[in-house]
Amino acid sequence: MNFEEELSGHVTEVENIIQSFLPEETGYQKRVIEAMNYSFLAGGKRLRPMFMLESYRLFGGVNEDVVKPFMAAMEMIHTYSLIHDDLPAMDNDDYRRGRLTNHKKFDEATAILAGDSLLNYAFETMLVSVAEENDNSLRTAKSKAAFYLAKSAGIYGMIGGQMVDIESEKKGSIPKEELLFIHENKTAALIKASLCVGAILAGADEKDIAKMERVGYLIGVAFQIQDDILDCIGDDKILGKPVGSDAKNEKTTYVTLEGLEKAMEDERRMSEEAIHLLEEVKGNSEFLVKLAESLIKRNK
Amino acid sequence: MNFEEELSGHVTEVENIIQSFLPEETGYQKRVIEAMNYSFLAGGKRLRPMFMLESYRLFGGVNEDVVKPFMAAMEMIHTYSLIHDDLPAMDNDDYRRGRLTNHKKFDEATAILAGDSLLNYAFETMLVSVAEENDNSLRTAKSKAAFYLAKSAGIYGMIGGQMVDIESEKKGSIPKEELLFIHENKTAALIKASLCVGAILAGADEKDIAKMERVGYLIGVAFQIQDDILDCIGDDKILGKPVGSDAKNEKTTYVTLEGLEKAMEDERRMSEEAIHLLEEVKGNSEFLVKLAESLIKRNK
Repeated sequence: MNFEEELSGHVTEVENIIQSFLPEETGYQKRVIEAMNYSFLAGGKRLRPMFMLESYRLFGGVNEDVVKPFMAAMEMIHTYSLIHDDLPAMDNDDYRRGRLTNHKKFDEATAILAGDSLLNYAFETMLVSVAEENDNSLRTAKSKAAFYLAKSAGIYGMIGGQMVDIESEKKGSIPKEELLFIHENKTAALIKASLCVGAILAGADEKDIAKMERVGYLIGVAFQIQDDILDCIGDDKILGKPVGSDAKNEKTTYVTLEGLEKAMEDERRMSEEAIHLLEEVKGNSEFLVKLAESLIKRNK
Repeated sequence: MNFEEELSGHVTEVENIIQSFLPEETGYQKRVIEAMNYSFLAGGKRLRPMFMLESYRLFGGVNEDVVKPFMAAMEMIHTYSLIHDDLPAMDNDDYRRGRLTNHKKFDEATAILAGDSLLNYAFETMLVSVAEENDNSLRTAKSKAAFYLAKSAGIYGMIGGQMVDIESEKKGSIPKEELLFIHENKTAALIKASLCVGAILAGADEKDIAKMERVGYLIGVAFQIQDDILDCIGDDKILGKPVGSDAKNEKTTYVTLEGLEKAMEDERRMSEEAIHLLEEVKGNSEFLVKLAESLIKRNK
């Protein structure tokens, strides 16, 4: 089985798990639930819940029912952030993955509420699992995992990165520290959280959690550097969008700051460090390593 | 001391508690934190956290540090809902309580993110308190309280009510069941949650929690009926807005459905039942009763 086939099996597995947590489209408030599910079911590789499940397995997690609600919650949070990002006041996008964006399919008010609903429902999904847990040590682990995810999604994580990204587009040029802040928070925060929530739920120790934190940081930032590299030397046809748009918009990227060669070199170092750390863990990290490599070395 | 003086003392007390949970305005993402705090600090009677604290006390809660993060979280959720409601795609309001609305003071993208941030930060605030609690039974109570609040704020509570309210405005006329769904969810859900979270954290039993659920429903719906009544027979000068706007907009209200006399009669019955239930509880409900009465019998 090649990696593409293996990945596709994992996507199906994760898809079945996370979809089982969606609310039923019923009641007077049906419209907002339809809008939530419309965007949630728009597909994608489900990377974040996949990272979470693999991390849970890597650290010896056995009862997968423990991690499932957190996988769904993670994807709900990712989905809500896309709905709000697409709004006219933000990126003003009409299409995402070939389908109408939420506010185009429904309307702007519904899209705002659908985003709010998904964020809120992510916490409902995690909290019912915390509140109904009878085992004390598992309840503690679940509440720590939920807090970790909450923090990663908010002003000290994803939303913080998104705010600075919006401001940086107005400013034109920004220093390296600010660019890294955006990459670390807007992209890496949820990848870090996916790996760490899986590890926390499986009962990993502090040292291993810190290791996964570093791995998530490295994968997330290297993923963004690859984005910048592809915009510079990628193939329009494979990428499905024109290259050179960053340069045209005078956007600060890792490549404009460090040059192409150093960007590629830094990315390689980050990727190697991430893989090395994953291989250090006592457990089967084979698929996780291949998944990380495929993200960093992608050509689209 | 008259009720106004007593209330003002309570407002100050609650204000000091909830403000202590606000994030510091620092870091690259400072702008979104300023926007969160701008709306949070816009004042108001802080009724929801006040209800929560009083309910906690009524059921014998002693260590008020337990309830404080939940009070702050409740007000953060209420505040985020106002920021998003004011957006151009929703009510398109420029002013709230005499100050510029969030998107007017900052901009629309920042206001969307500030709302998201407050909702997310509400959960961060509750979850850190759950995750760091060492007492097993208290940790269980806290996680149940956080789940209760989460559910009340989402599609099966506040957001659900908001969605149906938006749709009903387009439809013109709606049946009584649908109007009650809006009142119960858009307004009463968070009042119910305030009373119930206080009770859960104080260790109240299921029967008493069910009682507070009913009290919250009654206060919330009676409050909305009074809104409808005031729009019909209120005094422009005292209300600070023109009366008769519901009739002008052909909006379905409790008064248009049931007539003024029955609306007043139903409101009186609801108020009496709420007060009766509060007085049944073994504890000092004196201030809570006065607070509920003042909300229902208000003339503005």
